[in-house]
Amino acid sequence: MHANFFFCNADKLFSGKLLNLAILSCRNQQLVVEFDKLPIILSFPELGCLHVYLNSNPVAAPVQFDFICLPIVNPRYKREFVEGPAKKRLGALTRSDLVLSGHDWNSLVVGKISPWLQLDSKIDHIRKNSEAAFKQEVQFSCHLGLPAILVPLKSGNIANLARCLNESLQSSYFQQQFWIQIPLISYKDQVDQQIAGQTETEDDQVIDDTWKWWHKFRTLCEAQKRLSVALELTANLPSEDVINRWLSEPVKCVVISTSLFLTNKRGYPVLSKAHQMLIHRLFKLEVQLILTGVDRHPDKGIHSYQQYIDHLWQTQLPADPITQFAKGYEDYLQSPLQPLMDNLESQTYEVFEKDPVKYSQYQKAVYLALLDKIKSEEKHTKEVVLMVVGAGRGPLVRCALSAAQQADRKIKKVYAVEKNPNAVVTLENMKDEMWGDQVDVISCDMRFWEAPEKADILVSELLGSFGDNELSPECLDGAQRFLKEDGISIPSKYTSYLAPLQSEKLHNEVRTLKEKDKPIETSFEMPYVVRLHNCQVLAEPLEVFTFYHPNRDEVVDNSRYKAMEYKISQDAVLHGFAGYFDAILYNNVTLSILPETHSPGMFSWFPIYFPVKIPTYLKKDDTVEIHLWRRCSQKNVWYEWAVTQPQVLPIHNPKGRSYTIGL
Amino acid sequence: MHANFFFCNADKLFSGKLLNLAILSCRNQQLVVEFDKLPIILSFPELGCLHVYLNSNPVAAPVQFDFICLPIVNPRYKREFVEGPAKKRLGALTRSDLVLSGHDWNSLVVGKISPWLQLDSKIDHIRKNSEAAFKQEVQFSCHLGLPAILVPLKSGNIANLARCLNESLQSSYFQQQFWIQIPLISYKDQVDQQIAGQTETEDDQVIDDTWKWWHKFRTLCEAQKRLSVALELTANLPSEDVINRWLSEPVKCVVISTSLFLTNKRGYPVLSKAHQMLIHRLFKLEVQLILTGVDRHPDKGIHSYQQYIDHLWQTQLPADPITQFAKGYEDYLQSPLQPLMDNLESQTYEVFEKDPVKYSQYQKAVYLALLDKIKSEEKHTKEVVLMVVGAGRGPLVRCALSAAQQADRKIKKVYAVEKNPNAVVTLENMKDEMWGDQVDVISCDMRFWEAPEKADILVSELLGSFGDNELSPECLDGAQRFLKEDGISIPSKYTSYLAPLQSEKLHNEVRTLKEKDKPIETSFEMPYVVRLHNCQVLAEPLEVFTFYHPNRDEVVDNSRYKAMEYKISQDAVLHGFAGYFDAILYNNVTLSILPETHSPGMFSWFPIYFPVKIPTYLKKDDTVEIHLWRRCSQKNVWYEWAVTQPQVLPIHNPKGRSYTIGL
Repeated sequence: MHANFFFCNADKLFSGKLLNLAILSCRNQQLVVEFDKLPIILSFPELGCLHVYLNSNPVAAPVQFDFICLPIVNPRYKREFVEGPAKKRLGALTRSDLVLSGHDWNSLVVGKISPWLQLDSKIDHIRKNSEAAFKQEVQFSCHLGLPAILVPLKSGNIANLARCLNESLQSSYFQQQFWIQIPLISYKDQVDQQIAGQTETEDDQVIDDTWKWWHKFRTLCEAQKRLSVALELTANLPSEDVINRWLSEPVKCVVISTSLFLTNKRGYPVLSKAHQMLIHRLFKLEVQLILTGVDRHPDKGIHSYQQYIDHLWQTQLPADPITQFAKGYEDYLQSPLQPLMDNLESQTYEVFEKDPVKYSQYQKAVYLALLDKIKSEEKHTKEVVLMVVGAGRGPLVRCALSAAQQADRKIKKVYAVEKNPNAVVTLENMKDEMWGDQVDVISCDMRFWEAPEKADILVSELLGSFGDNELSPECLDGAQRFLKEDGISIPSKYTSYLAPLQSEKLHNEVRTLKEKDKPIETSFEMPYVVRLHNCQVLAEPLEVFTFYHPNRDEVVDNSRYKAMEYKISQDAVLHGFAGYFDAILYNNVTLSILPETHSPGMFSWFPIYFPVKIPTYLKKDDTVEIHLWRRCSQKNVWYEWAVTQPQVLPIHNPKGRSYTIGL
Repeated sequence: MHANFFFCNADKLFSGKLLNLAILSCRNQQLVVEFDKLPIILSFPELGCLHVYLNSNPVAAPVQFDFICLPIVNPRYKREFVEGPAKKRLGALTRSDLVLSGHDWNSLVVGKISPWLQLDSKIDHIRKNSEAAFKQEVQFSCHLGLPAILVPLKSGNIANLARCLNESLQSSYFQQQFWIQIPLISYKDQVDQQIAGQTETEDDQVIDDTWKWWHKFRTLCEAQKRLSVALELTANLPSEDVINRWLSEPVKCVVISTSLFLTNKRGYPVLSKAHQMLIHRLFKLEVQLILTGVDRHPDKGIHSYQQYIDHLWQTQLPADPITQFAKGYEDYLQSPLQPLMDNLESQTYEVFEKDPVKYSQYQKAVYLALLDKIKSEEKHTKEVVLMVVGAGRGPLVRCALSAAQQADRKIKKVYAVEKNPNAVVTLENMKDEMWGDQVDVISCDMRFWEAPEKADILVSELLGSFGDNELSPECLDGAQRFLKEDGISIPSKYTSYLAPLQSEKLHNEVRTLKEKDKPIETSFEMPYVVRLHNCQVLAEPLEVFTFYHPNRDEVVDNSRYKAMEYKISQDAVLHGFAGYFDAILYNNVTLSILPETHSPGMFSWFPIYFPVKIPTYLKKDDTVEIHLWRRCSQKNVWYEWAVTQPQVLPIHNPKGRSYTIGL
């Protein structure tokens, strides 16, 4: 059971049904409605549950749905608006709200805007009548407390509809959701005459890419969170690119017509492979499902459609380990850690220490470095000094000791250098309990430590989601004083990557982070660590900055500047950039969070997101150019970024005014 | 004399000179500099005055300039940066600040950034050295208190220069101006080898439209007010469109090379007709002039160039009456009057009553209406009732009485209806002193007045800059109750017009209007009455809304909705829309503030400006589409507007959240 269906998780109860209903009559807690010319009784026997009895027969087994979609007002009401200005109607506009309890209206019924409305008609009285009716319907659904309203788009000619709906969005009185229903392929491109009959005939300016309808609509309405997409599946599906773009939009529900179903050998309704795959991908966005249309399998009953979709839900592939780990963190913005300025907490150490991949890679790297440092014939005579800088609660110390054992090489001493006094407590305990004299715990910032001897191998894990963004370069530059001339740093190299990103969701999240007394741009001028989910990466990531360790340059300068160009393959919106990194720990031992080369199963880093203040429309074949600077001062490090193609946007975070990383 | 040259009015002292100077030595209050390989003494004998002695001869008559442009640091300093990272320089970076007094530095000297800097070089060490030198020069000019710094752009490859300069703009410590020097035609297109020698040779991606350099630069720097253009005239001039676009930019000074001058019969330097015309147009922006280059008329002396430009200044055509009236109001944003909600002040009446054209047009209209209402043969037997609704301090009453006299027709009664009790005082006095029984003064809102008889002619002046924006439709709808069936309304029709507008200046003005505790969009969601000056109208105005009076529709509905499309002829930036109106008072008697048909000499209305929140780049041949709504409620009226092409922008002022006009 669930409290509110449209926030419910898809893994609880997910299927619903759009009945093309007209309320015929009503009895206590029962609604007799017309579905496909067949009277049906809807019964609401208990909270949060809706039984549908076919053939008016309450004795037959009910079909259970989570919600139904009902026209907000009786379709017969249309008469009032057919000609001339709207006349005063005698009697009520539709049936009374008393047919259902407030709670049922509030949780079981989604309202449908009348299909005959033409708010963008060029004929004045049609437009004005439609506006009046629209306003009435929205207000009545607000009166009923419906949680959401379905509003269909039939073309790209929607400016006035957007204005009218946006007016409702201005009211903070009632937080109604608007589900904007958009077909995957425009009506004009579909053969189905029945559906085509509904399109606005006077509209001669059809844009075929229905995503553009949505883009226009949501932009006019400032992409408010209360607006989402009800995606209407069509018999033919658009290209993979178009589908990916939809998956970056706030799709709240999917409308599936019974006409899309095929019949299998046993006579049951099934969907084509392509539709199945698409629905599986949409499940990941936790969409609601709306079943609509004529019952084409009357011998099996409406129930069979629902069962089939249930079956699709049950047969989803299990999530990979990273997806499982990231559950609940999808599109959740986190400020990047500042381990240099702040001391990490116990729980943070605990989570990251669990990574099954990262430390095995580190161990492999130390293993190979030891073999290179001490040849087989020297293994009894030579020993090396190893320093772990930023030892935390000791995982890298453990790696180093295991690697030495595995390589059958001797480590003279492991220095575990850690500036967080709280983590030092753990290290000291481990030394006492396990490591003994082999390990020296140094409670000190690596940049200021005076080492008693120089190291052969310097091991650190200071990388952030964007490689250098937790100031690994500055820390290791400070630490390399006590690395021998021929010493090895693990990691030895890391590179950041950037790719243009579309995600209304993330952009909206940033917008709502605006803090009081701070200008709106502040939250757009910092990067966020985030598990990318409801988004689309618009081009292959490109390399940005690379750092090598040890750094033997005459003058060490960790400031950087790079401009990148990306070719865009279809119309899209630029909401920012996704950042990643990869690193060479030693030789061929690597870590990567780049999608193409992601270290399998490693969950320690989510990508980073650099927003842009102004969402920018991109046309097919446009070039996106971004400039990224890594700036350094005595006190801190920060990024500045600026888009210069296809449009020029202001420099973000000039002089680190909104965000810096403290040294 | 003037306190601060770069804010001085061009009609006081305007000419200046850029000397390509290198400071050779200095004595008390005198600077010996090198100009065109010739030593010159600059002397600062008194406050705000700069004497230039040629040939080191202080006895010869000095040339007087308002300011000079000097390199901020000695050009020889370049050596330090030629190879590798910047070395520590022994000795001072340039000559001491003691050569001039603080006040002189602050008012007589504009700093020049070293010409060898290449902040966007792709070669790392050249870029980093240039950055370091740039920072040093800006800081030193800040130390000196120079009022402005000249920064040349040599190509469109300027992202890093913009970033470095923007960093200085972030500091609120010193309010230095940056004059970005840009040639009218790009260096690559010029033949002059000497100038071409200065261009960055590695830059292979030259954009020929130099305005795009500026657009990119100022957008990256968020179009801050401290950034302006130093426009460098070139031998060949670009097209009229390109020049118009420059005139909509914040051009603070014009750089004129001596190489542009021709020699007239008497051997003196003169400019071509085209250059003269351009300079005359630039005078209107109150630009500073900078003279630069080799003295090509050594027998006449540098003085002769200055004299010639002085001559151009003196021979400007006198301003037309509207320009004279509008002096000081250029680009000054005013909230539109709300005469319905607020009572106008005495001074406001006084100003508008002075319009030499408006009332003569009204008198003509009443005259023609009287002739139509009373045929010649009826003139002794028939008389009409005339009502002035919104009579103010009586100008229309005077018009009506004069028109009756002129037409030799009888008016039974003039009712002067006025809701402002303060203006009624004036009306009552006029009745007592002049008008007598012929006029009845009615102290009442026309919408609620119960008239004792019906009128033949209803005269009003309720129009705003956008026609209906002072609620003339609502007022006249209310007043027409007491207009006879065949009565005449003066005005009988009015129409608003809209045209896309480029004006960084206006957009910046709106941005700085942001009120405390209000979101930034508030100031962008209202129209402003403004004398358009530093701007460019990007396409012919198109009709928007039309109102007719009397309005005999069955249901009177003054809400409106219209979408307009404009074709754009060259790349530009959309900062909003210019609004105008025209009106038919009666028959062929009109008022217009449309540029094409402006009533000559009429100054009562400036245009109106509808801003857009996000400046939008327009490409040649783009279509701009704007939707404008006039919305009405019981309490007020407001506009909403939205751009849907070439980019979709959010709806402005939804539900009148930022601006309404009270009923």
